Amino acid sequence: MADQLFDKIAIVGLGLIGSSIARGVKERGLAREVVGYDLAPEVRSRAKELGICDEIAESADTAVVDADLVIVAVPVGATEAAMKAIAHGLAEGAIVTEVGSVKAAVIRQVLAVLPELAVFVPGHPIAGTEHSGPDAGFAELFDGRWCILTPCERSTGASVEKVAALWRALGSAVETMTPEHHDIVLAITSHIPHLIAFNIVGTAADVEDVTQSEVIKFSAGGFRDFTRIAASDPVMWRDVFLHNKDAVLEMLGRFSEDLAALQRMIRWEDGAALEELFTRTRAIRRSIIEAGQDTEEPDFGRPHSHDD
Amino acid sequence: MADQLFDKIAIVGLGLIGSSIARGVKERGLAREVVGYDLAPEVRSRAKELGICDEIAESADTAVVDADLVIVAVPVGATEAAMKAIAHGLAEGAIVTEVGSVKAAVIRQVLAVLPELAVFVPGHPIAGTEHSGPDAGFAELFDGRWCILTPCERSTGASVEKVAALWRALGSAVETMTPEHHDIVLAITSHIPHLIAFNIVGTAADVEDVTQSEVIKFSAGGFRDFTRIAASDPVMWRDVFLHNKDAVLEMLGRFSEDLAALQRMIRWEDGAALEELFTRTRAIRRSIIEAGQDTEEPDFGRPHSHDD
Repeated sequence: MADQLFDKIAIVGLGLIGSSIARGVKERGLAREVVGYDLAPEVRSRAKELGICDEIAESADTAVVDADLVIVAVPVGATEAAMKAIAHGLAEGAIVTEVGSVKAAVIRQVLAVLPELAVFVPGHPIAGTEHSGPDAGFAELFDGRWCILTPCERSTGASVEKVAALWRALGSAVETMTPEHHDIVLAITSHIPHLIAFNIVGTAADVEDVTQSEVIKFSAGGFRDFTRIAASDPVMWRDVFLHNKDAVLEMLGRFSEDLAALQRMIRWEDGAALEELFTRTRAIRRSIIEAGQDTEEPDFGRPHSHDD
Repeated sequence: MADQLFDKIAIVGLGLIGSSIARGVKERGLAREVVGYDLAPEVRSRAKELGICDEIAESADTAVVDADLVIVAVPVGATEAAMKAIAHGLAEGAIVTEVGSVKAAVIRQVLAVLPELAVFVPGHPIAGTEHSGPDAGFAELFDGRWCILTPCERSTGASVEKVAALWRALGSAVETMTPEHHDIVLAITSHIPHLIAFNIVGTAADVEDVTQSEVIKFSAGGFRDFTRIAASDPVMWRDVFLHNKDAVLEMLGRFSEDLAALQRMIRWEDGAALEELFTRTRAIRRSIIEAGQDTEEPDFGRPHSHDD
């Protein structure tokens, strides 16, 4: 058990990320008390059943009373409303943080509504699975992953350090950068990959010569790797694309340009150029394995046994 | 141990697929004898060290002498040359099969060079990992996967049944279809996903505002799921795109059209259309899990613990 870092942590939003933080904090004793809240009554009652917080509050502003750390873990498009909802309950000097996948637009919204008595440390844990909701969370979700903090005009050095300490205690490594740089980095490492995955899964569903059942049966040929991320939470992702529109459109333009070049290599049967590109991409995979951001088990260690 | 299905199986090409077949056949006793051959001397000597065949031949035509089944497991672009190389050694009535990811173009090439005394059953196991070479193979690779057979004018009913029996004994379910239909189905379920994965990994490597190290660190946000398939064998994939050019270009056209529509939804902030698409793609994921073609473990069961 690590040291207690906070007295009372309030977590607003008990989906995959919020419930994983709650579990991690309680399991590692990082706060004296963890109080949770979710806008959805069914999520609140499920969180109670699961016992992932010490207490589930019945409103956002009561949840945050006396909390020295408030973590808002809702879809990017709901962040502004959540900040408004907690405004009246916040204690003097409370640290407010959030976990959204987009930073610049969210920070602008939050700064407009967050009371002056609180400090604000925007953050983004680079962790997740294709599942959502309070049942999907687990304490180890952030283990060995990165968390990016993007300090803004309402952050203090001390508050950034305290939030960083929490993420480290949850198992993550912490990096700080500007909100704008975060949004470009995430556009290429996360938002565009998701967009493309959503797109290919949609395209495959619409090919009239190929049945849905064939797509599903033969998905082990590559397609299934895309379906995992295309199964991520629809509302969360809608909000990400709407809030990081400029960086996403910029990166999508580059992707499409490169794809057109690749299409041309195939049309003109430029085998040497194809092989050169494919060899280069293989090397990047090795770097990701070496950096500990994926497993080297073949096929992600997917089981190859079956019953018949 | 299953029944012995063949007397002597010759396997030409001892990479991931060939060496996995060899291991599976020996482990399950599906042939009295398994003789292997690979064009690369270093693969032959490694296969000897690994003991994955009963014997490693020093030429393709000696490998296939007296074999009642010959399996050619080489990149699609090398299939024609491999068929020429075995031609003089083939026994009367030998069944020749191969495992290429493209069928129509390969069949045309093979029919032009395969001696009349042999029958030919084109096949394609929908299984693989991002690793290649004789060390990467394992006997369970085909367990719970599909194998597609695409009978042609040189297949007989009995030969198709014997090859199907082999794949079933290796753990696969077998489906037959025409070569042309296979090439369309695989274009969308495998070739385009690989193409897109190669492309996004290439695009990410070239973004000048984002360092390579950032791409690698933050790859858990989605990018790493693409790098696995973008790490697949470069020569194999070069050949796939060159040999299935028409179907790949057709499907790529559809993908790009859909991507342009998605880009427009983002530009015009059509949140409802985005959410509708993302909800639809999530349902397809569920079907793949239910069909047993992927694991429902979050994050493919990737480990979330670490040492620090």
